[in-house]
Amino acid sequence: MVRNQSGVLARIAGLFSARGYNIDSLCVAQTHDPDYSCMTIVSEGDEKVLEQVTKQLNKLIDVLKVNDFHEQDCIIRELALVKVNSTATTRSEIMQLVDIFRAKIIDVSLKTLTIEATGPEAKIKAMIDLLRPFGIKEIVQTGRVAMARK
Amino acid sequence: MVRNQSGVLARIAGLFSARGYNIDSLCVAQTHDPDYSCMTIVSEGDEKVLEQVTKQLNKLIDVLKVNDFHEQDCIIRELALVKVNSTATTRSEIMQLVDIFRAKIIDVSLKTLTIEATGPEAKIKAMIDLLRPFGIKEIVQTGRVAMARK
Repeated sequence: MVRNQSGVLARIAGLFSARGYNIDSLCVAQTHDPDYSCMTIVSEGDEKVLEQVTKQLNKLIDVLKVNDFHEQDCIIRELALVKVNSTATTRSEIMQLVDIFRAKIIDVSLKTLTIEATGPEAKIKAMIDLLRPFGIKEIVQTGRVAMARK
Repeated sequence: MVRNQSGVLARIAGLFSARGYNIDSLCVAQTHDPDYSCMTIVSEGDEKVLEQVTKQLNKLIDVLKVNDFHEQDCIIRELALVKVNSTATTRSEIMQLVDIFRAKIIDVSLKTLTIEATGPEAKIKAMIDLLRPFGIKEIVQTGRVAMARK
């Protein structure tokens, strides 16, 4: 949770890059309180790196709270938009796959279908892998967001 | 579309903050090619600001392509996780609302329901507004992602 001020993202991204920690995915969005933004960062590293990052983040004046999810029971979700080639012949097969993954078709053209899918990373990856043979034209993904189950 | 390298996000976020342009939401995630990441940035400003930002972004060596969606026919989506207070009495009413917005209940406890919703910003806002009277415990949102319809 960070103060919604210009420069906060730059400082946080700078903190990671200065220490050589890669950011796998990142989401920033406003919360219901316009003064605060919620930032979800996915990064890889051992316990020591994680401890360092958390400490450094807590030192930033615009950071209100750091929540470390890596050992918490939590819900993790991301959203993907996938545009896949489709013809009259392959359309129904693609629609079946979309149904199995409880995804949604949100746009259709003569030659493509656009699919909206949500889930944990593994589910989205599995769906994309099964769609690949049809010819994927474009993928756009949000980063991951997390919420503790408690 | 940016090269997936440490420091790219910091440079882009720095570019916005140095010029005082606020970032309303931002998503970075890997693409199907692990060498590249896709970054979706929502920012407000007039045509001149937009032109400036696009120019500056194009100058960065790690930026491969800038796509400006503001006058394109495109699909815009975001994902929200909403944890709302619920009791045996209010649960069915909340479930009705969730159905109407084609959202999903993804977790339940004795005192709460956790809802996953996707859509354009206005739809998610409308759902959250209707859930507010029950008592919202937590909201986490991804930023927006966009895909051209063409």
